[in-house]
Amino acid sequence: METMGRHVIAELWQCEFDKLNDMDFIEQTFVDAALKSGAEIREVAFHKFAPQGVSGVVIISESHLTIHSFPEHGYASIDVYTCGDLNPNVAADYIAEALGSQHREVVEVPRGMGPVSLGKTKVIASA
Amino acid sequence: METMGRHVIAELWQCEFDKLNDMDFIEQTFVDAALKSGAEIREVAFHKFAPQGVSGVVIISESHLTIHSFPEHGYASIDVYTCGDLNPNVAADYIAEALGSQHREVVEVPRGMGPVSLGKTKVIASA
Repeated sequence: METMGRHVIAELWQCEFDKLNDMDFIEQTFVDAALKSGAEIREVAFHKFAPQGVSGVVIISESHLTIHSFPEHGYASIDVYTCGDLNPNVAADYIAEALGSQHREVVEVPRGMGPVSLGKTKVIASA
Repeated sequence: METMGRHVIAELWQCEFDKLNDMDFIEQTFVDAALKSGAEIREVAFHKFAPQGVSGVVIISESHLTIHSFPEHGYASIDVYTCGDLNPNVAADYIAEALGSQHREVVEVPRGMGPVSLGKTKVIASA
C-alpha cells in the first residue's frame, strides 16, 4: 500500500446553526460524503456536546473524515484525508454544501511524501 | 467555546514494524497520549487492516487524534488537533517515541482563526 495521501483541511464558515448542532444529520452527511467519494467505510463515531457542537469521524479504508462543529460561531472544522485514487475534494465539497457554508477556506496537504507543505488556499464565498 | 485550535500534522518515519502493526498497542498509546496531554476522551475507534496497517481515532472534548500506519514502509501518519489550553505536541511527541520513530516531520496548522497557514516544519532525526 502506498503511503501517499491527500489531506484536505477545510474551514467552513457561515454554516447553518441547526445543521451544525444536529448530530444525526452530520453523521449521515459524513457517511454519504464518504460513499460519494468512493470510499469504503470502516468505523463511524460521533459525539454530541452540551450545550452544543458535534465532533465525529468516519474511518475509511483510504484514511478518514473528521468534523468539529461550533454552531454558535457558524463554524465547522473538517478534514478529509484520502489515499489511493480518491479525490478528497468530492467529500469536502459535499459536506460544505450540506452544512450550508457561505464562506470556506480549503487547502490540501500532501501526506506520506516527505516534508509537509501546503497547497494554495482556495476561498469559496457564496453571494 | 472558542473556535481556535492547534492542529499538529506529524509524519513519523522509520518506526518499528511490529508496533505499527499492533492495533492494541496503538490504541493504548493513543489513549495514553490523550490523557497525558490533559484531554478528556469521548470516543475511541480503531481498525486493523489485512494484511497489515492500523487506522484509528480518539475523539476528545478538545478535538481529535488520528493515525494511519503503514508497517511495510515504517511510516505512520498522525494528526493531533486540540483546542483550549492543551498543547498538541505533548501527545504527538509521546506517540512518536512510543512507535520508535527515528525521523519525523512535524508541522502545526492553526485552525478556526481565518485563512489556513502552516508553521515551520520541524524535523527530528535520531542518531
